[in-house]
Amino acid sequence: MLRVETVAALREAVGAAARPLGLVPTMGALHVGHLSLLSRARAETATVAATIFVNPTQFGPSEDFGRYPRPIEDDLRALADVGTDLVFTPSAAEMYLPGAATTVHVGGPALPLEGEMRPGHFDGVATIVTKLLLEAQPDVAYFGQKDGQQIAVIRRLVADLDVPVEIVAVPTVREADGLAVSSRNVYLTPAQRAAAPVVYRALAATRDRYRSGNCNRDELEATCGSLLAREPAIDAVDYVTVVDADTMAPWAGEGSCMLAAAVRMGSVRLIDNVIMD
Amino acid sequence: MLRVETVAALREAVGAAARPLGLVPTMGALHVGHLSLLSRARAETATVAATIFVNPTQFGPSEDFGRYPRPIEDDLRALADVGTDLVFTPSAAEMYLPGAATTVHVGGPALPLEGEMRPGHFDGVATIVTKLLLEAQPDVAYFGQKDGQQIAVIRRLVADLDVPVEIVAVPTVREADGLAVSSRNVYLTPAQRAAAPVVYRALAATRDRYRSGNCNRDELEATCGSLLAREPAIDAVDYVTVVDADTMAPWAGEGSCMLAAAVRMGSVRLIDNVIMD
Repeated sequence: MLRVETVAALREAVGAAARPLGLVPTMGALHVGHLSLLSRARAETATVAATIFVNPTQFGPSEDFGRYPRPIEDDLRALADVGTDLVFTPSAAEMYLPGAATTVHVGGPALPLEGEMRPGHFDGVATIVTKLLLEAQPDVAYFGQKDGQQIAVIRRLVADLDVPVEIVAVPTVREADGLAVSSRNVYLTPAQRAAAPVVYRALAATRDRYRSGNCNRDELEATCGSLLAREPAIDAVDYVTVVDADTMAPWAGEGSCMLAAAVRMGSVRLIDNVIMD
Repeated sequence: MLRVETVAALREAVGAAARPLGLVPTMGALHVGHLSLLSRARAETATVAATIFVNPTQFGPSEDFGRYPRPIEDDLRALADVGTDLVFTPSAAEMYLPGAATTVHVGGPALPLEGEMRPGHFDGVATIVTKLLLEAQPDVAYFGQKDGQQIAVIRRLVADLDVPVEIVAVPTVREADGLAVSSRNVYLTPAQRAAAPVVYRALAATRDRYRSGNCNRDELEATCGSLLAREPAIDAVDYVTVVDADTMAPWAGEGSCMLAAAVRMGSVRLIDNVIMD
């Protein structure tokens, strides 16, 4: 596995790489969810590239940028173990030049849900993803369905800016008890961790109602919301919503239907979603 | 010369094109200024591609989008005459998909001058230029120095987003009397046209003062401003300013120095600039 730390070295490496090239952008702290993206890339592309960059611009001022886990040696070992060919680990100074002044702003699917709860988050995501796609020039890029809104935002910007890449959404990987695997799960106390599977249980139960014929958005949201409200370890429900998986607009009975939820347990925010259809 | 009207057809054509590929993005209404860009591309690249697209998003609501000249047959003939290989003439529907929601926003050099006078203009420019660069994948793209701030904005976004292209600024082409060639010059009445060369005369006289040793920004701006103020055909001076040619910040004695002016004659806005050093 070749490790590069500059855009110039990355460009040189991808210029010489066998095609198709698959890219898995990450913030490190790799877990089995990331490894499923890498395995998918390994199965589908001739060259697998990963990036590790904890992007400061997608964190809000009160968020966990400082304490976000950065186990770089473990990450590099995990990447090598799954057959990654190339890893790009830039510094913030390499990614944001002095005088940098350009932001990729996505409206539409970036506005509700996480866009409302985390102002500026998706501008940070859209900008860094655009940069990574233009730096690494992959044929295919892989993202986890767990961040379902992020996928909608990235698909939107790729279509709108005509970035020549295919975006693949890889199904959410879950622990045995259903909790979506996330780098932020390490923040949970044992008691919170024990309670956290309620999020997926509520989503899955609501998906079952949908699949048995209940297509009423308000009722589905109420069902899921009341299942979450019953769990004392959940301190707040940021949203429970049934949306169009592409536009993130309230689901209107057509197109792919996504049920998404965000809850808080103490200072930890958990997000999860299921595709209903 | 091959004419294509869809992104897919453009992609196919550039995929098969000899490299390097030079791109000249235009809004049509081609004049000798554009032709100098194309000649430069013809001399430097194996394949010359042009685009003609009057981009609605870079016009303000009270600006001249509707009446902007669109002599498409003349333009195609002119492109063929200078040896253009490929021209992309998309519709607005081809460039802006239903639900399009992505904007490339540049701060920094896009904020003062035209950015102040024409809110939203550079977001429109930055977004369409990013799209065209990603669609046509040129090795080199050519822009006219007449829109000096636009060049600074495009260089900024190309650096910030890591678009893999070289940006070349081509010197402003002038009429015999000094007036910068522009598609908007056709709007001038004969009397305004006769008076319009004062803009370049004022810029050039001020550049002469600079070159003979006067490096005081306020004095240079006052010199140029008073030359413009004396011309009765000029109804308003939007700005006269000595700026850093890369950042568009007030020139602080280092780096490339640009003197830029914008004036109004009736409903016509004329912009021009000179590089002082």
